[in-house]
Amino acid sequence: MSEPVLKAEKLDAADDLAPLRDRFLLDDVVYLDGNSLGALPAGVPDRVADVVRRQWGELRIRSWDESGWWTAPERIGDRIAPLVGAAAGQIVVGDSTSVNIFKALVAAVRMAGEDRTEILVDASTFPTDGYIASSVARLTGRTLRAVTPAEVPAALSGRTAAVLLNHVDYRTGRLHDLPSLTAAVHAAGAVAVWDLCHSAGALPVGLDEHGVDLAVGCTYKYLNGGPGAPAYLYVRRSLQDRFDSPLPGWNSHVEPFGMRPEYAPAPGALRGRVGTPDILSMLALEAALEVWDGVSIDAVRAKSLALTDFFLECVAAYVPGGRVESLTPVPHEERGSQVALRCADAGDAMKRLIERGVVGDFRAPDVLRFGFTPLYVGFADAERAARVLGEVLGGA
Amino acid sequence: MSEPVLKAEKLDAADDLAPLRDRFLLDDVVYLDGNSLGALPAGVPDRVADVVRRQWGELRIRSWDESGWWTAPERIGDRIAPLVGAAAGQIVVGDSTSVNIFKALVAAVRMAGEDRTEILVDASTFPTDGYIASSVARLTGRTLRAVTPAEVPAALSGRTAAVLLNHVDYRTGRLHDLPSLTAAVHAAGAVAVWDLCHSAGALPVGLDEHGVDLAVGCTYKYLNGGPGAPAYLYVRRSLQDRFDSPLPGWNSHVEPFGMRPEYAPAPGALRGRVGTPDILSMLALEAALEVWDGVSIDAVRAKSLALTDFFLECVAAYVPGGRVESLTPVPHEERGSQVALRCADAGDAMKRLIERGVVGDFRAPDVLRFGFTPLYVGFADAERAARVLGEVLGGA
Repeated sequence: MSEPVLKAEKLDAADDLAPLRDRFLLDDVVYLDGNSLGALPAGVPDRVADVVRRQWGELRIRSWDESGWWTAPERIGDRIAPLVGAAAGQIVVGDSTSVNIFKALVAAVRMAGEDRTEILVDASTFPTDGYIASSVARLTGRTLRAVTPAEVPAALSGRTAAVLLNHVDYRTGRLHDLPSLTAAVHAAGAVAVWDLCHSAGALPVGLDEHGVDLAVGCTYKYLNGGPGAPAYLYVRRSLQDRFDSPLPGWNSHVEPFGMRPEYAPAPGALRGRVGTPDILSMLALEAALEVWDGVSIDAVRAKSLALTDFFLECVAAYVPGGRVESLTPVPHEERGSQVALRCADAGDAMKRLIERGVVGDFRAPDVLRFGFTPLYVGFADAERAARVLGEVLGGA
Repeated sequence: MSEPVLKAEKLDAADDLAPLRDRFLLDDVVYLDGNSLGALPAGVPDRVADVVRRQWGELRIRSWDESGWWTAPERIGDRIAPLVGAAAGQIVVGDSTSVNIFKALVAAVRMAGEDRTEILVDASTFPTDGYIASSVARLTGRTLRAVTPAEVPAALSGRTAAVLLNHVDYRTGRLHDLPSLTAAVHAAGAVAVWDLCHSAGALPVGLDEHGVDLAVGCTYKYLNGGPGAPAYLYVRRSLQDRFDSPLPGWNSHVEPFGMRPEYAPAPGALRGRVGTPDILSMLALEAALEVWDGVSIDAVRAKSLALTDFFLECVAAYVPGGRVESLTPVPHEERGSQVALRCADAGDAMKRLIERGVVGDFRAPDVLRFGFTPLYVGFADAERAARVLGEVLGGA
């Protein structure tokens, strides 16, 4: 056996998280696209069947109380909270990531006050964040400026209302320095809004510890909630009374069944709710989150870094020189849980990888993206992926 | 047997829609709360199980293409279209009703132009519509005025930007005159936005025929899509190029996987999309809509009116005089598919009805609400509900 294969065996044998793979329904595909759609947790199918057949089909309307449907957004928010370093009562689940970015950014601008006229947004952001930020600027009469995260400290001023940043860049996998950027935003008197889509579930976030104001994330990547599972919104406890939502739906009313013509917001995190929550998707997510029982996010982070280190090592061993270039930073403190390789014919290469049982994804125009979900990806997977990539790109 | 019982038997025997009840999973409860949460269509559990186990669990990320996840919002919109009198290509499914009202009303105000400074909203509306309208007014710098639908024609002026109306009042079951109100709104040069939550699936709407501009509806009432199933947005074809969304997420980009920093909206109905759609809830809805195969909405309307007529007749026969007062209009052209009875101790009365197997709902402070879903409610159900109500309220 080759050296990488032997090393993978050793690493897998020493991996305390390896048994967690059994909490998912998987096959022999090497699935490195959990940063786009997480794999199916084993407990989800039966839970969803129960929600459909018994809770909806038999209890029907009674389930809003008896099956806990009404309180699901806050309850599941509290289930996500420890994974992102938040105490209970600050996260609510529901709506898409885009809609939550809209809520968070409008609320942030309102918190900052009238004399703060500029919004800063990560120039390399996932597109939807930029589109929504632009809409928020237009609706609130602010200007929008796109800067790289590195440029943020210099771009901040007394005019800055809010800054929307990504914890991990969706394309390159670069991890941004949330603690120091948040501190810089606060030093300028502005409000920090973080998008956690590519970090939550893969590494410690520390929302409370680092004083993040508002945060948004999706649940279908490293949280394995299922396709289009509802996103979540974090509002720091000390800001909740000032959270002034642009989407004041009846679900966030202090007395939702009072059917009052005047809006009066509920206290706490549920002020971020809007309309009736999508119960099937939401309760699938709740079941999915049970895979985290007893799992330490620090252990997940350690394995994630070991996996991406090892994958890069195997790529260097298997892929002919010059065929790929890693866009993912080498220093651990700058790396999320994915490896992005620039490659001349990336679209075609990914097709051939998938045909051979290695699933990553292609991001136009020239990026091969490989996501490492420590809960179900092992070192042998990383070795095989690099080996097949080497074959596809004409290596040994 | 009593006269109402005999009459119910005759009416059920002559009911061509009676066999449709077999398309649902039901029991011996009289379920008159389908205007809050529709019953479970028989085809949904297996479909959802397939979506979870095979589409998500086995195909995983490939399902966005191979299982048609990506195009579901438009495809399911086209499935709803004939039920509300719309040609294909004008409806997109996704997000909650509240979020869609926000999109529609901001877009309507933008269509109306800068010199149109006032939004009118139904004063008796379901609360969320009013809350969202108020937020739209605040964000777009318009004023908001609440008027009853009857007052709309007199309230319209050259200052009116948009009018948000409910087709059927959620509380009383009153059906408003969509054709003539829409015509009045248009005569004033304003944009008509209709909320169809309590009409779609219960009666013909005729969106295209009556020139409605924008419409929004939920899918978990008479469309039986399941708890919190995604809502839909109708944008009349001739207005689609002018639909300027306040929630321009990446899913409505003309080239969503181009990952471009500048937003460029897609043509057509899918301009109303925002973020990643909640696939489990959405595909449950798609399966649920199959109960409409071969069903005429005119036949549904005829049965709905016959059911509510008969229920009112039975209430008169069984309930002691003066104990309840119907808030639902007697003329057919003013009646939706529910009967609302004002009753002094409505909360307690509904509790006792539910204990005896008759499920309606209570709307504070004093309304008993009974929804009649012609696809699965029969005349014997109406008779039994009225009879039990009579018992509960101390009748014979």
